[in-house]
Amino acid sequence: MKSYRKELWFNAPTRMAFINISREVEDCLRESGIQEGLVLANAMHITASVFINDDERGLHRDYGIWLENLAPHEPVNRYRHNDGVEDNADAHMKRQIMGREVVVAITGGKLDFGPWEQIFYGEFDGRRRKRVLVKIIGE
Amino acid sequence: MKSYRKELWFNAPTRMAFINISREVEDCLRESGIQEGLVLANAMHITASVFINDDERGLHRDYGIWLENLAPHEPVNRYRHNDGVEDNADAHMKRQIMGREVVVAITGGKLDFGPWEQIFYGEFDGRRRKRVLVKIIGE
Amino acid sequence: MKSYRKELWFNAPTRMAFINISREVEDCLRESGIQEGLVLANAMHITASVFINDDERGLHRDYGIWLENLAPHEPVNRYRHNDGVEDNADAHMKRQIMGREVVVAITGGKLDFGPWEQIFYGEFDGRRRKRVLVKIIGE
Repeated sequence: MKSYRKELWFNAPTRMAFINISREVEDCLRESGIQEGLVLANAMHITASVFINDDERGLHRDYGIWLENLAPHEPVNRYRHNDGVEDNADAHMKRQIMGREVVVAITGGKLDFGPWEQIFYGEFDGRRRKRVLVKIIGE
Repeated sequence: MKSYRKELWFNAPTRMAFINISREVEDCLRESGIQEGLVLANAMHITASVFINDDERGLHRDYGIWLENLAPHEPVNRYRHNDGVEDNADAHMKRQIMGREVVVAITGGKLDFGPWEQIFYGEFDGRRRKRVLVKIIGE
Repeated sequence: MKSYRKELWFNAPTRMAFINISREVEDCLRESGIQEGLVLANAMHITASVFINDDERGLHRDYGIWLENLAPHEPVNRYRHNDGVEDNADAHMKRQIMGREVVVAITGGKLDFGPWEQIFYGEFDGRRRKRVLVKIIGE
């Protein structure tokens, strides 16, 4: 069994952002030389997500509005998590809806994807440096 | 390390549907001959889910109403994703709540499940042919 | 390839509870002797979750209120799942938002975590004995 590890770094300029990381994950897979196995890609921070969906600008705008409606940022004092120095309780909720991680099959040295699957880093408390872990195991 | 891959095809007759695929995934596991490892089952389409929950008709009705309430299909023009030919923005949201994939342990050649765990394909934009990927790795 | 399996048991005294299980999962990893691979930790019951987030009391209070708002327990007769002896339809929904499982990378014999990641058992229908499965594969 082979294993491979890499951290991808991001610094989103806005509080919320969706960044397509499919190319970076494919680069990791190529570098690993693994032909059959599994890729795990997970946010290393608890106010961010890694998820798979469509790379379509309108949908991302819809996601932003939808998530803000399900877990509003304002008023920040509605959350006990924000009683001290924090103001990101909503980001911990948005991340639960969008998920922490994805596990993707590797077949014949490629990400084994359906026609529209793209991997995204979902940021809900941006404007600082944060990481995604890519771990690959297989042969 | 052994690996195994199969696609399961579905064509749900309704927009939303929950289809129990536990038997098909068990068949894959038997075919693979793998005794210890992990099964990944994921929707290959971004408006569908694979999830684990109860095979109970009342609950599935409840899920339908609950998801419709959290991410309504109508009016379709509330979503920017639907500005062109699409009308399935809500399906991209329902899929995020229900999840893209499950990872299940394999122990002694069986799906290592609790008493009520069943695997479902969750369809949120049906009436066309769509796929689930089953990938198994182990020994 | 090595594999390891253990069940962790819980009996939460309240309907809803969040229990930090990071230490127990680390103990499993040490016991397994696995240096490189993946850990799967999943609820074996369909009204509970395993998720990764912050070990902060205020946030857990916020999660409780937020989940109750998204999937209210009362009135129990709003759900068809509760037409018989059950009253836990809401717990099947809360579990979908918080997720069934986490997959964590193992690097150099450690859980490969970001600075604040902690693993929790999320209980949504407590006051009885329930289990989490820890399965580890790797080398």
